[in-house]
Amino acid sequence: MTEQPNAAPIEFHFDFSSPYSYLASERIEALAARHGRSVAWRPFLLGAVFKTEGTQPLTTYPLKGAYARHDIERTARGHGIPFVWPPRFPFLSVNAARLVYWVQDSADPSAGAGDPATPLVHALFRAAFAEGRDLGHAEATLDAAEAAGLDRAAAAAAVKDAAVKARLKEATEAAMARGVFGSPFLFVDGEPFWGHDRLPDVEAWLEAGGW
Amino acid sequence: MTEQPNAAPIEFHFDFSSPYSYLASERIEALAARHGRSVAWRPFLLGAVFKTEGTQPLTTYPLKGAYARHDIERTARGHGIPFVWPPRFPFLSVNAARLVYWVQDSADPSAGAGDPATPLVHALFRAAFAEGRDLGHAEATLDAAEAAGLDRAAAAAAVKDAAVKARLKEATEAAMARGVFGSPFLFVDGEPFWGHDRLPDVEAWLEAGGW
Repeated sequence: MTEQPNAAPIEFHFDFSSPYSYLASERIEALAARHGRSVAWRPFLLGAVFKTEGTQPLTTYPLKGAYARHDIERTARGHGIPFVWPPRFPFLSVNAARLVYWVQDSADPSAGAGDPATPLVHALFRAAFAEGRDLGHAEATLDAAEAAGLDRAAAAAAVKDAAVKARLKEATEAAMARGVFGSPFLFVDGEPFWGHDRLPDVEAWLEAGGW
Repeated sequence: MTEQPNAAPIEFHFDFSSPYSYLASERIEALAARHGRSVAWRPFLLGAVFKTEGTQPLTTYPLKGAYARHDIERTARGHGIPFVWPPRFPFLSVNAARLVYWVQDSADPSAGAGDPATPLVHALFRAAFAEGRDLGHAEATLDAAEAAGLDRAAAAAAVKDAAVKARLKEATEAAMARGVFGSPFLFVDGEPFWGHDRLPDVEAWLEAGGW
């Protein structure tokens, strides 16, 4: 299906440290394209949610954590998506998230359809979960930014920029105000879907126009 | 596909107070039958898991709870499964769970394939989530037991029987020892699958024989 200029993009909220979000990031564009949609990347910080909800990173729960590790590896294998565990998990994703908003906000609005941060999002996610880099290290994040075509020095300055920092903070608060509590968390025309395992529901929703 | 006498049943671990487990209970037998499998019902008490894991009932989390209510209703609607919220949620499911083991343990082993508690499981789940009865009340549980063909007086005695109580306690401990931390939690030839949303994966696993 061709792009429908009036169709809203699928809003993809995520924290870069979420393995299920990496898996979903590898599948969402093809799914969206099948229904004439684009994807708008909306990184946020899960840590802020954990404080409000009283929850913790998935893998810190004794039984649930062990299952999640197994399920994530099995899901990656089933979809043929390369997957490794980063050396630290969860890792600090704040710089990676800031870069996405910096790229989006500094892009030329007349450049056409599609999220200008798409190559960066994939480069960062793959650095972490396909190559096993630790995005908590500034150098690993900047390596991925450079691989996505960004100027390394400008990217290094951006993650320390007060306005960029504030932008991510606002985005996180805005996401929570809309009910986002986990990652990935998608909105399709305002309808919320949480989790990589809801992608078939997202597709069914787009096909049926809701139910 | 016909029953394969040597194929192990799908082990369906659940707490009766779990809406996603009710939804899965309405779909699992047809799925199992498509692959020559039967279903073995394994109720346990989620409350014991919450203590060990440090988690809480889904709907008590502020943002996650609101989403879960929406997602459960949407999922039921999408699958055409009748659904109402019981008057109290979560409710005490201990008596309902005890009845299942009582029926299984007192059934004639020569009666043939299939779990003898199947009609009871459906009667109890539907009383709660299709009819909106509160299974925390003994009378509602006994009404469902009677509707499933059980002797009401015998069922009333069974839920107070020390051996039946111990049986459920042991089953809950055994489930947790196998890694069960949520509901529904299925094992297919030893492979664990957590959640109603993993039913498509269970089906794919049975089709492919694993991956």
